[in-house]
Amino acid sequence: MTNIKRPLAISAPEPRTLDLIFSDKARAELHAKYEIVEADPDNIAGLGDDILGHARYIIGQPPLSAETLARMPALRSILNVESNLLNNMPYEVLFERGIHVVTTGQVFAEPVAEIGLGFALALARGIVDADVAFRQGNEFWGGEGNASARLIAGSEIGIVGFGDLGRALRRVLSGFRAHIRVFDPWLPRSILEENGVEPASLEDVLTKSDFIFVVAAVTSENKGFLGTEAFASMRRGAAFILLSRADVVDFDALMAAVASGHIVAASDVYPEEPLPSNHPVRSLKGFLRSAHRAGALDSAFKKMGDMVLEDMDLMDRGLPPMRCKRAERETVSRMRSKPVAMN
Amino acid sequence: MTNIKRPLAISAPEPRTLDLIFSDKARAELHAKYEIVEADPDNIAGLGDDILGHARYIIGQPPLSAETLARMPALRSILNVESNLLNNMPYEVLFERGIHVVTTGQVFAEPVAEIGLGFALALARGIVDADVAFRQGNEFWGGEGNASARLIAGSEIGIVGFGDLGRALRRVLSGFRAHIRVFDPWLPRSILEENGVEPASLEDVLTKSDFIFVVAAVTSENKGFLGTEAFASMRRGAAFILLSRADVVDFDALMAAVASGHIVAASDVYPEEPLPSNHPVRSLKGFLRSAHRAGALDSAFKKMGDMVLEDMDLMDRGLPPMRCKRAERETVSRMRSKPVAMN
Amino acid sequence: MTNIKRPLAISAPEPRTLDLIFSDKARAELHAKYEIVEADPDNIAGLGDDILGHARYIIGQPPLSAETLARMPALRSILNVESNLLNNMPYEVLFERGIHVVTTGQVFAEPVAEIGLGFALALARGIVDADVAFRQGNEFWGGEGNASARLIAGSEIGIVGFGDLGRALRRVLSGFRAHIRVFDPWLPRSILEENGVEPASLEDVLTKSDFIFVVAAVTSENKGFLGTEAFASMRRGAAFILLSRADVVDFDALMAAVASGHIVAASDVYPEEPLPSNHPVRSLKGFLRSAHRAGALDSAFKKMGDMVLEDMDLMDRGLPPMRCKRAERETVSRMRSKPVAMN
Amino acid sequence: MTNIKRPLAISAPEPRTLDLIFSDKARAELHAKYEIVEADPDNIAGLGDDILGHARYIIGQPPLSAETLARMPALRSILNVESNLLNNMPYEVLFERGIHVVTTGQVFAEPVAEIGLGFALALARGIVDADVAFRQGNEFWGGEGNASARLIAGSEIGIVGFGDLGRALRRVLSGFRAHIRVFDPWLPRSILEENGVEPASLEDVLTKSDFIFVVAAVTSENKGFLGTEAFASMRRGAAFILLSRADVVDFDALMAAVASGHIVAASDVYPEEPLPSNHPVRSLKGFLRSAHRAGALDSAFKKMGDMVLEDMDLMDRGLPPMRCKRAERETVSRMRSKPVAMN
Repeated sequence: MTNIKRPLAISAPEPRTLDLIFSDKARAELHAKYEIVEADPDNIAGLGDDILGHARYIIGQPPLSAETLARMPALRSILNVESNLLNNMPYEVLFERGIHVVTTGQVFAEPVAEIGLGFALALARGIVDADVAFRQGNEFWGGEGNASARLIAGSEIGIVGFGDLGRALRRVLSGFRAHIRVFDPWLPRSILEENGVEPASLEDVLTKSDFIFVVAAVTSENKGFLGTEAFASMRRGAAFILLSRADVVDFDALMAAVASGHIVAASDVYPEEPLPSNHPVRSLKGFLRSAHRAGALDSAFKKMGDMVLEDMDLMDRGLPPMRCKRAERETVSRMRSKPVAMN
Repeated sequence: MTNIKRPLAISAPEPRTLDLIFSDKARAELHAKYEIVEADPDNIAGLGDDILGHARYIIGQPPLSAETLARMPALRSILNVESNLLNNMPYEVLFERGIHVVTTGQVFAEPVAEIGLGFALALARGIVDADVAFRQGNEFWGGEGNASARLIAGSEIGIVGFGDLGRALRRVLSGFRAHIRVFDPWLPRSILEENGVEPASLEDVLTKSDFIFVVAAVTSENKGFLGTEAFASMRRGAAFILLSRADVVDFDALMAAVASGHIVAASDVYPEEPLPSNHPVRSLKGFLRSAHRAGALDSAFKKMGDMVLEDMDLMDRGLPPMRCKRAERETVSRMRSKPVAMN
Repeated sequence: MTNIKRPLAISAPEPRTLDLIFSDKARAELHAKYEIVEADPDNIAGLGDDILGHARYIIGQPPLSAETLARMPALRSILNVESNLLNNMPYEVLFERGIHVVTTGQVFAEPVAEIGLGFALALARGIVDADVAFRQGNEFWGGEGNASARLIAGSEIGIVGFGDLGRALRRVLSGFRAHIRVFDPWLPRSILEENGVEPASLEDVLTKSDFIFVVAAVTSENKGFLGTEAFASMRRGAAFILLSRADVVDFDALMAAVASGHIVAASDVYPEEPLPSNHPVRSLKGFLRSAHRAGALDSAFKKMGDMVLEDMDLMDRGLPPMRCKRAERETVSRMRSKPVAMN
Repeated sequence: MTNIKRPLAISAPEPRTLDLIFSDKARAELHAKYEIVEADPDNIAGLGDDILGHARYIIGQPPLSAETLARMPALRSILNVESNLLNNMPYEVLFERGIHVVTTGQVFAEPVAEIGLGFALALARGIVDADVAFRQGNEFWGGEGNASARLIAGSEIGIVGFGDLGRALRRVLSGFRAHIRVFDPWLPRSILEENGVEPASLEDVLTKSDFIFVVAAVTSENKGFLGTEAFASMRRGAAFILLSRADVVDFDALMAAVASGHIVAASDVYPEEPLPSNHPVRSLKGFLRSAHRAGALDSAFKKMGDMVLEDMDLMDRGLPPMRCKRAERETVSRMRSKPVAMN
């Protein structure tokens, strides 16, 4: 090895692991370009000043005190390899110093969008129930099995939330010639229009859609904002597809709306995870269940490592990170939804 | 009513009915513009010469003899409201006289493409099995439930047959940034290239794809052309999705390839329809079943009537039909696959 | 060489030449697969029966009598390598026998669409006049030079005629987020809708567009159908772009509308070609001139040969031609616009 | 009027004016929602503390001292209604305090992309020279006028710089089925790939393209980076289109490359603006000239006001700005290219 020092990165990616988020090739690149110090996330302060003083990056979001940060003058970025931000470091200090706190949740957008479209097609065409009936020998053939079947082409689609997930959904829907309305109070109208969707009120999204996709993050403000009244306002037979977090809906109200036959639904998320074995959603007709599997693909985790490498490369060259998403002063406190318990 | 005679159309749409293929609005337009004579399809010859002599159109494909046709000097088109052509009329005479024989099978392209994509997503993400496991309380959560999950984005896709169905498939896949290879020996390369797909040999489609969609019509030449060897040549874990007719595959070989775990599959069509209750495909793991439901949506049937009206309007004005698909001298005898027994 | 006879094709492509329409590679393929008999187009009848009796194809559209055709029992197709059909053969006999008469004018669609968009951008942004002024040292800088500049993005666009040219135009316009209305009385509404354009009346196209592209072929019915009244009905400042044939407009009325400042225009075609040196359009301000150059690119001519080869290959295999455009019984007599005098 | 105070904004948009950047409707909205204090940009410090102390926004980029900023505790954003940042305020203080400095140069992306495509089509098809020849009576007709004509469809395209302009260019090129390579050292590969372009080295962009668009901003690092060697490495006959700033090229070398016939070129920008009347580029054959007109459309300026209103609305609600582009700590010093002298 030469004398030229590689930049130093502290690794504390828990609950992820470096093996989960880096492919073999990316892992090799990581170690070739950086000196990696694997650290106990609960004792970053215990690292010596020779390490803290030179660390350019932290991979992960371990707890950090103001004192520890003060010992890290070379720190450029905390790359947190999750979607959520924990309230375990003095963000205001980080913003003042221009230390970028970035998240990699974008990797889940494509997998979530694909399964979301899969849910929509499964609900529209009865794919699950038709297969189950076929297994049991009581399937209906041809048109007789299509009483409630319908197309996505030409339908009215609503999306609640237009971050990375909403945009990925729009992309996989682009071959369907459907009309897409979006409700997202955090975005200006013109950005929605440039993305080829119609900016709409929540009411319009609810009452005018054949398919509604909810991909909004939970914030302190929108907890349970979709309840009995919202479901009642939907078109009869519409499909409600929940992909972000269960807390944005009143889950009992959702189940009641499906049980009554007013709407059909699919969900990847639940008020408790795992769910008790006797939870009524397990036997609810008209409801398609998935056990928080929408994003957690190995290929998505591996993309995290690629993003981290791309942004560290930019920052090594004195440029701002562009691949991961940066935490913002204004919204950091709102992005603290419940972290996932498992990968 | 005025003296101006409306053009005369003979209605013999069996096994369809006018109610099936015309919406109320289209039905009203049909009767307003045309004098409709509802006829026994098995006795067109029994209609008087005042009717046969003036008939401009036949809606349906009733048996017609050369003699009957000779009594129909005003006939411009037989609009057969199906996808298949029966061998029940002297096509050569029709071609010589320039009487257009048109089919409306195109209406099924969009519904078939949508459910085909739904099958692909269901196989890629285990949507059906995950829901069934959830019902039973033995679901896997998060990444643990995604051992074999994968994306369509970035995958290699093969399509066998690039008629209306293949094109509709390409359209619904256009938001996925996948690489699409097409095998269609009836089409010149340049047409495939203009549609943004790669012209490929059957071998390349089979061996290089993660998802294979078969939408080729059965002809006298391709019966059972996909057998044991073809399935063995596919990538391990690839998804085979059969959407056209069971006769293009060796169905036992397909089941064996799935049973062995080499590939997964979905099919809308079967060697016998309906299928015996003890058919082994009913319990085959890795196989997604649909009972010939892909195309038979009410909205598709209603589109048939719209197409018929649009083409009759063109022909009324001395123009050729452009909306339905015309039978061709060269291929008419090959387009005679087994008709469906029910709508 | 083996005894296996290659199919025989008679070559009479005048006014084209084989060198014009075949690349070296395609020419080699032509001769490898076919026995080519180069014939005097004015004396096809003079070829012996050994040639006429075996000829499968004619490349070109030489005059043919019913007697000559009767001597050609193996003829499958006349591939005319032009856009127009001359009235020099008994088409009814060809249609009866199922001999395909095909044209290759489609090759001009892409070049015409590209220059058409180039004209639109040149008119919208004053590209020509700005460069001429710059040469002369009296250019205006920055916003001062943009008094009448405008965007295509967000504009209203009208297209008259939606054959190959209209579709190619729609394609090159697809990145502009413009609203496109199409008037084409030969096409059903649903085909226009499937192509993502709005079917519209001629009046709506004229009165609601910022840019109007005329790509309609001349027929016996539409000669001069755009005159003083049509131009007066256009939006003030709109751009009129003529790409098909001068005969569809009243050219004097067009010039008057431009001279008055009501509209701006571009044209590739003229009532006389070449045009007298003192023709007033030469000095008309607000008019962009091109001397019938829109389609005649070498690459377009070479594509003709590729299309001919692709369709002969299909017909060799007993399939119908799919690449070139077939003449239709109903419209053959209307497609006889004035042929071009030069390539 | 009620007692509820409107937020206060200081207006100092020079060299723009509020009339230039706000439509009547937007101007009305601005005054309805905000208390606007029009200020002398050279004496912001002269405003009283009642104004400075309450000002939430500054529209424009007047000189600001650290002292003045210290008197503005409520300041949330400086919306500078230009593309460039002047070195006239202590940016580090602004970044520390989280005061967003935003620019509105994005409004020029669409107009520049459209005229850029117009230049490319004009060069590819000789639109300007053909019209000039036609005016003079020495035009060539048909194929004779197309000796050097070529298509964009199927061509190789290179783009240098992939900010807002590069993306807008990709969009207007999306209907052309061209292969696009992009060189942008400030962006990670994956972002380029997600935008459907191929990340490439500068050398590949130069040597493999038929059309090269330069839309890179001038930085302290890339001044004159395209010189004699770069132009010599380009394909013979390629088109070089300069849309950003003249300083990125060695302009004399560019002219020499065009004069030699090796390439053709178009430029909207020049080493001096306005250019002396005897500058040799004025008579250079193969060069298409435009006098810094690419972006300065009235509709673009009006869009600035819309963007400012949308971002102020977000910030009023405690959200970060999303519509304008934010200055970045890392790059602010590099974004200081020479400001335009006029709108």
